[in-house]
Amino acid sequence: MSFERVAVIGLGLLGGSIGLAVQKHLPRVRTIGFDADAGVRERARERGLVHEVLDDPVEAVRQADLVVLCVPVGAMRLAAAAVAPGLSADVVVSDVGSAKQRVSRALAETLPGHTVIPAHPVAGTERSGPDAGFASLFAARWCILTPPDGAPEDKVAALTAFWQALGSTVEVMDAGHHDMVLAVTSHIPHLVAYTIVGTASDLEEVTRSEVIKYSAGGFRDFTRIAASDPTMWRDVFLHNKDAVLEMMDRFMGDLEAMRSAIRAEDGEAMFDLFTRTRAIRRGIVEQGQDDARPDFGRADHGKDTA
Amino acid sequence: MSFERVAVIGLGLLGGSIGLAVQKHLPRVRTIGFDADAGVRERARERGLVHEVLDDPVEAVRQADLVVLCVPVGAMRLAAAAVAPGLSADVVVSDVGSAKQRVSRALAETLPGHTVIPAHPVAGTERSGPDAGFASLFAARWCILTPPDGAPEDKVAALTAFWQALGSTVEVMDAGHHDMVLAVTSHIPHLVAYTIVGTASDLEEVTRSEVIKYSAGGFRDFTRIAASDPTMWRDVFLHNKDAVLEMMDRFMGDLEAMRSAIRAEDGEAMFDLFTRTRAIRRGIVEQGQDDARPDFGRADHGKDTA
Ligand SMILES: NC(=O)c1ccc[n+]([C@@H]2O[C@H](COP(=O)([O-])OP(=O)(O)OC[C@H]3O[C@@H](n4cnc5c(N)ncnc54)[C@H](OP(=O)(O)O)[C@@H]3O)[C@@H](O)[C@H]2O)c1
Ligand SMILES: NC(=O)c1ccc[n+]([C@@H]2O[C@H](COP(=O)([O-])OP(=O)(O)OC[C@H]3O[C@@H](n4cnc5c(N)ncnc54)[C@H](OP(=O)(O)O)[C@@H]3O)[C@@H](O)[C@H]2O)c1
Repeated sequence: MSFERVAVIGLGLLGGSIGLAVQKHLPRVRTIGFDADAGVRERARERGLVHEVLDDPVEAVRQADLVVLCVPVGAMRLAAAAVAPGLSADVVVSDVGSAKQRVSRALAETLPGHTVIPAHPVAGTERSGPDAGFASLFAARWCILTPPDGAPEDKVAALTAFWQALGSTVEVMDAGHHDMVLAVTSHIPHLVAYTIVGTASDLEEVTRSEVIKYSAGGFRDFTRIAASDPTMWRDVFLHNKDAVLEMMDRFMGDLEAMRSAIRAEDGEAMFDLFTRTRAIRRGIVEQGQDDARPDFGRADHGKDTA
Repeated sequence: MSFERVAVIGLGLLGGSIGLAVQKHLPRVRTIGFDADAGVRERARERGLVHEVLDDPVEAVRQADLVVLCVPVGAMRLAAAAVAPGLSADVVVSDVGSAKQRVSRALAETLPGHTVIPAHPVAGTERSGPDAGFASLFAARWCILTPPDGAPEDKVAALTAFWQALGSTVEVMDAGHHDMVLAVTSHIPHLVAYTIVGTASDLEEVTRSEVIKYSAGGFRDFTRIAASDPTMWRDVFLHNKDAVLEMMDRFMGDLEAMRSAIRAEDGEAMFDLFTRTRAIRRGIVEQGQDDARPDFGRADHGKDTA
């Protein structure tokens, strides 16, 4: 089986990018979109994010064989409930939420009797809204599927093929493991970036204007991450609390060890850590998840951005 | 006064960039270079980082009216001692070290009777060595001078003009304040990035291969910073210990507050922080220290890299 009619619910960065990517890579698939926000729907029409933007969620999913929920994690239950009356019997309902265990549970509870196959494309930028999406967002990125036990194999295969067509490599894993992995590779980095930018904003000894001026020393990269959407990230931390707290404890323990090393002027401990961390960087560059060029190769990647 | 003969001691990222930038922007200035490492000297000759690379530090500074020490912070005293016998009476000795209070003291002690005007160009990349430098590294960046009390005004003015010629905007401040500002905008971000990459490397539940694969969720930006030179950064933390420890305590306090907010599922506290941090980002983009494009505008900036 393959999908012929895809409904995208939520037309921000992720929803818009899916719409554009499907139109580019799967030209025979019909795309229909809905967003709770009328302003977003209008802008989505202007940009042609999907073939057709409807004002009613029930109509938007009518006859769709794939529905992808692209709303903040905390709005997934509501978005699912809103489309439920229009779902056809053999539709696949999926999502793109950044946390999976709680979201999967919410979707399963809200849509009993339907096939729900949660997903998370590990691709993003710090921008959001209907102007943020672009067709190549998923190219050369990973997409994680977390099908529940007993999910129909042909439907998992169809969703896999769908993400592959958009340029991604698909990996299947358990929702709990997903949440642990992403806590490390995404949620803690965002939390740390937000916190450090907050710390810097509140200092008395150093003015904001100084923080801004001298940000090229490393800080500016944190501010980019810390410019991400507040609603999305609040929802992520509320919905991946356990894994985030666990990883945060590890990180804070390691940070305390570094504080002790600095206090003791233990240059060897610092040198050791600063050397070990290079191996992971090499892996990331080798595997194409970042680039050693000064622009990190993002110039090619987001070429068709707004 | 203006400089006619500039000696660059240490021909890595900073020294090489100064050599290339002077040749580009101040074509009448003669540049002479030295590095303690014979392999670096050879590569510096091949790349033409300076007009002339000498094998003897004393000869390298002979007749120079500006000597810029571009070695790791912990090697400044040694590098200064090595050139001391060749310094002319009215030379200006400067440096580019990332920490200023202890370095200034070391240079003043090592070179009594000479004019020492410490400096720190707030510009860098994660790369080091003689292949890393490029002429535009200092363009549109800030350079901080920390002249000691009583430094001759004409010499401070000449050093200011020198950095302006390389494309930088110069700011004068007290060495102690510099160390506090940079602890926030550079040293803590690096320490946090190194630590988080270390934490991620050591997990049992999440493999290194998973960390690498799913790094596009935010983690990869930390790995870039954590790929910076271990010697340089060990020296920075050893030489800016007090300010780093103070800022680290603030940051860790704020991180604990976020942990409590997550534990209490206090979405409002999170949303509030995640919103406040956007203002600083806007300032950085508006003031040209970063760019809102997906490649952060680095494509233009490092154009003539390697
Ligand atoms: N951003 C990333 O880097 C990234 C990466 C991977 C996955 N994700 C996940 O992708 C999802 C969407 O994120 P995004 O970055 O695309 O956010 P976004 O740009 O803010 O888009 C979300 C859109 O959904 C709309 N919406 C909110 N509640 C809705 C509802 N009940 N029904 C229909 N539409 C609703 C929002 O409208 P309003 O603007 O009016 O609220 C907004 O237009 C999140 O679950 C996030 O965790 C994000
Ligand atoms: N990297 C940045 O982003 C940045 C930004 C602003 C300021 N800074 C500061 O700039 C300085 C240089 O950093 P960098 O990034 O240019 O480092 P780098 O690329 O490693 O270059 C330093 C060079 O100095 C050589 N060296 C070491 N000890 C020496 C000595 N006693 N005499 C002569 N040469 C010696 C090193 O040789 P070996 O390779 O054999 O050790 C190396 O070639 C540091 O103080 C750093 O804090 C760096």
